[in-house]
Formats: sequence, C-alpha cells, structure tokens
Amino acid sequence: MNYCSHCGNSVVLEIPEGDNLPRHICHQCNIIHYSNPKVVTGTLPVWKDKILLCKRAIEPRLGMWTLPAGFMENSETLEQAAIRESVEEANANIKLDGLYTVFSLPHISQIYVMYRAELLDLNFSPGIESLEVKLFSEDEIPWQQLAFKTIEQTLRYYFSDRKMNNYPVYSHIIEKSNRK
Amino acid sequence: MNYCSHCGNSVVLEIPEGDNLPRHICHQCNIIHYSNPKVVTGTLPVWKDKILLCKRAIEPRLGMWTLPAGFMENSETLEQAAIRESVEEANANIKLDGLYTVFSLPHISQIYVMYRAELLDLNFSPGIESLEVKLFSEDEIPWQQLAFKTIEQTLRYYFSDRKMNNYPVYSHIIEKSNRK
Repeated sequence: MNYCSHCGNSVVLEIPEGDNLPRHICHQCNIIHYSNPKVVTGTLPVWKDKILLCKRAIEPRLGMWTLPAGFMENSETLEQAAIRESVEEANANIKLDGLYTVFSLPHISQIYVMYRAELLDLNFSPGIESLEVKLFSEDEIPWQQLAFKTIEQTLRYYFSDRKMNNYPVYSHIIEKSNRK
Repeated sequence: MNYCSHCGNSVVLEIPEGDNLPRHICHQCNIIHYSNPKVVTGTLPVWKDKILLCKRAIEPRLGMWTLPAGFMENSETLEQAAIRESVEEANANIKLDGLYTVFSLPHISQIYVMYRAELLDLNFSPGIESLEVKLFSEDEIPWQQLAFKTIEQTLRYYFSDRKMNNYPVYSHIIEKSNRK
C-alpha cells in the first residue's frame, strides 16, 4: 500500500500509539488502514458414497481438482458463502450438514472453513470457474491431482470419519507445502 | 474507497468480467481491490467453576464486560490470535481446550471464532484495552453488562454444556440486535 484509498495522499508505515505492529497510516485523514486475513469457505458435497469435485478452470492450480470453495464476501454468512460457492462452481443443489474443518494458513493469511453437505440431486454442471464437475468414490479420488492441501485434508478426514459415522470439527494449522 | 492504494489514481466501482458484484477497480494498475469480512477470535478462559471476563477500556462498549477477543492479524493462526488477545487484554496464561463457537455477523461483515481455554494460574491483570479483569461464577455473570451478543451466546452455551461435560462446536448467524 502506497496511497490512502480515501484521500489519495501518501501513507506511511508506522506503529500507531497503543499498537505493536506497523500499519499503513494516512496523516491527512488520520486513518489507519488495517490488512487482515481473508476467509475461504466451501463444502464437501456427498451423494451416496461419492463426493463432488470440481476441475479448476482458473489459476491457481488450473486443471487440478478441488471441493467447491472461495472467498467469503461482505454481508453474507459463512453458510451462505459456502452454498453460493457450491452453486457458482458446480451448480450444485445442496443442503449443509454441519461445520467440518477450520484451517489457518498463516503463510498466505487465510482461514478455510469447510462444511459437510448433502447433494440433493444430480443436476450439477460446471460453473464458469470449473472445467468439469464429477462424483468420485473414495478409491477414485485423484489424490495426486488435488489443488490444495486444505482440500486433501478435508477429504482424508471425511473418509476416515465415515467409517465411524462420527464427524467432529477439526481446527488446526495447515503448514506451507511444496504444493501450495 | 476513492483512490487506488497502489498508484494513487481514482478507482471506479464496476462489476469485473466474470464476476457478479461491483468492485473498486483501478484501470491504471489493472487491479481489483476486494473488500472481505474480518475475523475476530478469542477465548473463554476457565478457572475451576469461574470464567475470566474483561471490562472494556475502549470503544465500542467501553465499561462493559467481554471475553478476551480481537481482530486476527495477517501471518498468524486462529489459535495464536486467540491466545495473543487473551494476553493483550488480560495478561492471561492459558491453554486452549478446543474450538467452540463460530458466528457470522453479516450486518458488520465479521466472523467470530471462539475457543474454550483453561486458565493456568491467577496471575492475570488488565491489559491496555481493559479497565479490570475478574473471575465470575455463573450466578455472578453481569448478563446485562456484556458488551456483545457473540460473547453472551458463547457464555450461555458454556454454562449449558458444562452440565453435561460435552462441548460441541456451534456455527450459526448472530443477527443484528439492539445492543450491537
């Protein structure tokens, strides 16, 4: 950040009084411009013993497979955002089943919040950000072609928990990987 | 937002190609400036049958009681942020016990992520953002003097769940209230 988005004058990087981190400050407007982590949210849509995955039509990880997920927007709830992303990326008609994974990705200042979901019918199709959407059973999952470690981890928890029909909520860090 | 924070030229509010929401766009830099919800995280610190609350020294809700919580910063995990806020606001020495409440507040574009925590000793004291920090048993909680509905709801779940010694993770919307 170089300029104040409010008045257009230059900002300086300083630690405000009572704070302990440098922030971009506009001394014209007396405004502190904070930068904070972004929230990605999405779903794990289940149809019988299969999971709906989307092949990415956009960077990053174009051509790799993912669960429907994307950035939460202002003025929506996590649940609304997760459903919206499932519609945008897969035209998936779903019902949320519950919060499932909450990951911190400090190296890119993001958190991921994923919900288990029931796919209500087979009328899914690729949205503009997907090349293809398809159901996969556990032994069909393209593990080596998954776009993100958050998605791989969510799928691994799911297939493990499904054996016991018990789905706790997971919350932990996802470290930077070679893939990410 | 009026000006591009990168180059200082004026931005326009337009729907980018392939998007469906208006964004602030700089046609000089060809940058889209997104605005997204912020994450607030904190803890419910428990000592025997009591909970640690902080009396706010800052607006909003100056003088009202809250659990230690605040905005997550870039490059940290939710867990680190929750512990940091507990230190900053109450100098509390804690150990996290688990994710507890995940609330969406769409009217102010925030999510709250609260963790249960064990208070490890009684060496707490007010941080710069607190006037006072104090342990409260259930019948001492100043329900009418709580700063935020998210905090009240987290405390209500806790006292209810404590009876069964079973703490599920809650995820739902917190609607705008008269208090907020």
